Amino acid sequence: MLRMPVKRRSPWPSPEQRAQTREAKRDAVLRTAARLFKERGFPAVSLDDVAARLNVTKPVIYRHFANKDQILFECVSVALEQILEAAAEAKEGPGKARARLLVMMKRYAVIMTEDSGMCVVRTGDHELSETSRKEFRKLKRKIDQLIRALIEEGIEDGSIAPCDVKMTGMAITGALNWVAKWYRPNGGQSAEEVADAMASVLEKLLVAHR
Amino acid sequence: MLRMPVKRRSPWPSPEQRAQTREAKRDAVLRTAARLFKERGFPAVSLDDVAARLNVTKPVIYRHFANKDQILFECVSVALEQILEAAAEAKEGPGKARARLLVMMKRYAVIMTEDSGMCVVRTGDHELSETSRKEFRKLKRKIDQLIRALIEEGIEDGSIAPCDVKMTGMAITGALNWVAKWYRPNGGQSAEEVADAMASVLEKLLVAHR
Repeated sequence: MLRMPVKRRSPWPSPEQRAQTREAKRDAVLRTAARLFKERGFPAVSLDDVAARLNVTKPVIYRHFANKDQILFECVSVALEQILEAAAEAKEGPGKARARLLVMMKRYAVIMTEDSGMCVVRTGDHELSETSRKEFRKLKRKIDQLIRALIEEGIEDGSIAPCDVKMTGMAITGALNWVAKWYRPNGGQSAEEVADAMASVLEKLLVAHR
Repeated sequence: MLRMPVKRRSPWPSPEQRAQTREAKRDAVLRTAARLFKERGFPAVSLDDVAARLNVTKPVIYRHFANKDQILFECVSVALEQILEAAAEAKEGPGKARARLLVMMKRYAVIMTEDSGMCVVRTGDHELSETSRKEFRKLKRKIDQLIRALIEEGIEDGSIAPCDVKMTGMAITGALNWVAKWYRPNGGQSAEEVADAMASVLEKLLVAHR
């Protein structure tokens, strides 16, 4: 009779393990594509390039994504969803609005130093399909609205000096988005250092001045 | 004997007139291309599209430009040269540095509402040839350096509060460049109104605060 140790694991993965592996593969495709889009620009990257970098063939990519447009859209969505989450948490959190906006700006800046953040800034509206473009714009609009709402809240709770709310919001998002254009990972400042420094500079837009 | 009025002009254009016409044609190609690049993105625009919009054929375009890359490069150069001029004038002008930087920021913002300014922001480094890319980066670096020099001058002449010069410069260029991404000519605010409002907001980065 074959004696088996009771706790020995099956050589076949469990449904949870399979789901995890699938998720990890999907993530790897997105991360690799984001890196390539950043390096060469979206039009110059083929799914064969993405597949080659991952040591697989194109059909493997198609098990996870319908096409290149979907991959680009998910790359930019990753970053926009993270920013939106940071903005939503800042909107709902405790304390004065200025302090919450400051935390949000730091998180936003860090996201902009990452590959997916860089994709957001480098992706032209024309590079997305009609549907993706609408979704992309909707996410960006939501972020803008949350930032404006935070500024208005700060003016009400006295932590932010009265200002041109729309223009101040645009200056903040512009400065933060631009980080993705100039930040170099080997440039001497870590992402966190840049984020802290940029947030401190931008806080001046919110305080009363002489 | 044929009597001619002394001042009658020749039906053949003078060398000056020919030079002017040539310049006007060249400008028209650049303006039309900038508009199309902005609308559809650089990769999607062909020289046939540019020619068609001008009611000519592609060979006419080639009388003025070697290729599409040269046209894109000249489109972005137009804007960058104007910004550089504004920055250089601000650097050399009379008065306190903060007031000069403020004037410069307004001019910069207006340029960013124009087609060529929008091309600068929407053009990825990878869309330019090696040579053009180097020139593009050199111009951008010069602008950054002039802005930083102005901020340093302002700190010395007392018109600008001590600050993180590099990060403040990056926040200013980021916010100004981003204008090209969100400004809509029919959005209710003129280019000058947006420029004034944005410069006023950004001036807060330069003043002492409580």
